[in-house]
Amino acid sequence: MTEKFPGYKGEALRALKEAGAGIGDKIRVMKDEEIYQGVLIPRSEFGDDRHLVLKLNTGYNVGILVTKDTKIERIGVGAKPAFSTPPLPKQKENLPRVAILSTGGTIASRVDYRTGGVRPALTANDLYSVVPELSEIAFLDARILFSVFSENITVEHWSEAAKSIAKFVKNGVAGVVVAHGTDTMGYTAAALSFALQNLPVPVILVGSQRSADRPSSDAATNLIGAVKAAASAPFAEVAIAMHETVSDDSIIFHRGVKARKCHTSRRDAFKSINVPPLARLKDGKIRMLTRDYQKRDSEKEVIVEPRFNEEVTLIKFHPGMGPVIDWHVENGYKGIILEGTGLGHVSNRYFSAIRKAITKKIIVGITSQCIWGRVNMNVYDTGRDLLEIGVIPLKDMLPETALVKMMWVLGQTKDFTEARKLLSKNIANEFSERTVFGD
Amino acid sequence: MTEKFPGYKGEALRALKEAGAGIGDKIRVMKDEEIYQGVLIPRSEFGDDRHLVLKLNTGYNVGILVTKDTKIERIGVGAKPAFSTPPLPKQKENLPRVAILSTGGTIASRVDYRTGGVRPALTANDLYSVVPELSEIAFLDARILFSVFSENITVEHWSEAAKSIAKFVKNGVAGVVVAHGTDTMGYTAAALSFALQNLPVPVILVGSQRSADRPSSDAATNLIGAVKAAASAPFAEVAIAMHETVSDDSIIFHRGVKARKCHTSRRDAFKSINVPPLARLKDGKIRMLTRDYQKRDSEKEVIVEPRFNEEVTLIKFHPGMGPVIDWHVENGYKGIILEGTGLGHVSNRYFSAIRKAITKKIIVGITSQCIWGRVNMNVYDTGRDLLEIGVIPLKDMLPETALVKMMWVLGQTKDFTEARKLLSKNIANEFSERTVFGD
Repeated sequence: MTEKFPGYKGEALRALKEAGAGIGDKIRVMKDEEIYQGVLIPRSEFGDDRHLVLKLNTGYNVGILVTKDTKIERIGVGAKPAFSTPPLPKQKENLPRVAILSTGGTIASRVDYRTGGVRPALTANDLYSVVPELSEIAFLDARILFSVFSENITVEHWSEAAKSIAKFVKNGVAGVVVAHGTDTMGYTAAALSFALQNLPVPVILVGSQRSADRPSSDAATNLIGAVKAAASAPFAEVAIAMHETVSDDSIIFHRGVKARKCHTSRRDAFKSINVPPLARLKDGKIRMLTRDYQKRDSEKEVIVEPRFNEEVTLIKFHPGMGPVIDWHVENGYKGIILEGTGLGHVSNRYFSAIRKAITKKIIVGITSQCIWGRVNMNVYDTGRDLLEIGVIPLKDMLPETALVKMMWVLGQTKDFTEARKLLSKNIANEFSERTVFGD
Repeated sequence: MTEKFPGYKGEALRALKEAGAGIGDKIRVMKDEEIYQGVLIPRSEFGDDRHLVLKLNTGYNVGILVTKDTKIERIGVGAKPAFSTPPLPKQKENLPRVAILSTGGTIASRVDYRTGGVRPALTANDLYSVVPELSEIAFLDARILFSVFSENITVEHWSEAAKSIAKFVKNGVAGVVVAHGTDTMGYTAAALSFALQNLPVPVILVGSQRSADRPSSDAATNLIGAVKAAASAPFAEVAIAMHETVSDDSIIFHRGVKARKCHTSRRDAFKSINVPPLARLKDGKIRMLTRDYQKRDSEKEVIVEPRFNEEVTLIKFHPGMGPVIDWHVENGYKGIILEGTGLGHVSNRYFSAIRKAITKKIIVGITSQCIWGRVNMNVYDTGRDLLEIGVIPLKDMLPETALVKMMWVLGQTKDFTEARKLLSKNIANEFSERTVFGD
């Protein structure tokens, strides 16, 4: 019987049975002065026995506590998945070939309301059925690389993705699109920026903040933008394609090493930090926003450096911080990125721990938790002291990019001096000469 | 001899002696194709033997590597401190009484070019001599609380400051100004917001991004704004006063729990996150920007709750993170703030560590590293799983404020259930009902 109600038990299950409502049914829940209306969806195995979960019309899910005063009414059958029977694709052989690799995340999945399961939906057929415009832009080769929420993406996924992308690039595609959950898309974009060098074509990561089965979804617009860039953008770099504003007017391309998710839910969540974005798609045209970029060039041959070392950490300094630096030193870590305050400071309480780390040939780099601006260790005593101790100032590099770079650097070399040098060297424009907003 | 050159040794000392240049002298350093001109300042005890440090005309210090090809020329005597002999203040008894408490930082210090020492300059005399306008706004009572760079501010400083401020408030001042380094001013503002409740008058934290001895300093404008607000603003809350833009046109007041330093060097580094700022000072007038605020009310009596518990940590989740949660659990921590991705996620690799923490009655709250927006744990499986495990979603609260609140909550109660409840309760408008930029 509970198979009809996966995840439900106790009070919640009893109330649902009483109402004659099952998974996928449209129901109305009345409690106190609130009324919720939506489609009943299954719960996770961790579920307690007192909540039920509805997918509201807005597309958001909501958990509702069931008490003895809660009334449930079945008001109909939930909508079926919007694209259950995709039409046959009309692949046009004369269009640029674009590979779409799916790693999971909102953009690459669809929810089956009947089972509640989220499954990757990234066959070329699926894509054409959801976004028919794509068939006018490119000849697609769609593959599922992984199927994970992006918070579960690991260093191994970065390596795998880099190798797969390189294969497609070597096979002569006009560009590669990587569908990715937005949560850690910035980290992955940075990883691919370091791992894929000398690219002949663009590699575009794309996500969405609303799944494709929601009316307000940004998935289609972002995908179109990403495929268009992969097919024909003049740049050959790793970039992130997302909404530029909350409207659908333009898609903005952020350089992979300089982008950051800066809002939990807005469609324009990603921002280029300390630099202008790479390019903009508006009115069907892609326009470069900087002169300083790697140009598309089919003569180039991609170089893959897919090794990352996980013995690296990011420590966000804060008042009252404990002996976190010491713990990493004692546990064999090889690289530490400090997210310091202001121009690149941490409390002098940690000077001895940092000195110890560096004595043990652990590489310590510093960035700023301000996010915008650049570290400058010459202004205050604290900065000068940290420099003397041997901390490497990482200019205007994002803390998240710095972490990924440290992992990549220590995947390239175990030599202390060489690794320090590589960390400070500009590999993928992760350092910019001047900040746009600086003064 | 080296007393004339504190901190200098080796090659750098030799070159300085050769040039006949000493601390406080204006010198010109020529190397390769670069020429530096500025005042020679002393070095820290951590100094190596190869660099010298100049204060440039821009006010920034620069460290210069001395090689055998470096030429040094003494070109004059450095400027003396600009305000060595302050005139007598003209305290006007009929003006509102404002207490100015100095904790250190750029705004409250001046550099003595002769000794290179930074010393607090916050006597009322000093203030009037630097910013004579203040004598028209308030009758000042200036005190030095501490004299530390703000990265060295600890939980104990927060408690001390709260108690001192409360004393002045109880003595009937019209408002209190706290001069503070900008690096951790957001953390201290949050701490004071929780520690000082039912305030009858405003408590204004103020910093500056350029020290008062620099031509482009924002110190005077910010101080005037802060003193004006303390003397006469209609709100009675803890706020941060800084430049609203890079121009001197307006001073903006951020609610203490909602402000964050978002740029390493800009004068408008502080931003209100997820809410409009509290108030603006423009053309001499303070205008409220929200209706939802605590009003100035001399009938109120301040309640001081100055206890903070340091057994609390902030963990910024990232791909490839190590067993940092476990380390904190094993080492007796009582509260953990997770800075998750997106809507409030961490990798499922850490579910068991988090479950273990909560089983041990460690309080775990989650915020988002996006900074803008709010966590919503009902949208994806990961969020729902974390909720079931017992992680507390901290809505649109800043990660830094959440850390400070957790420290404060565990200073109020050791009871697990009560502490969890207090963490979720809105104490100082750290949660807002809707985000301004949300959609």
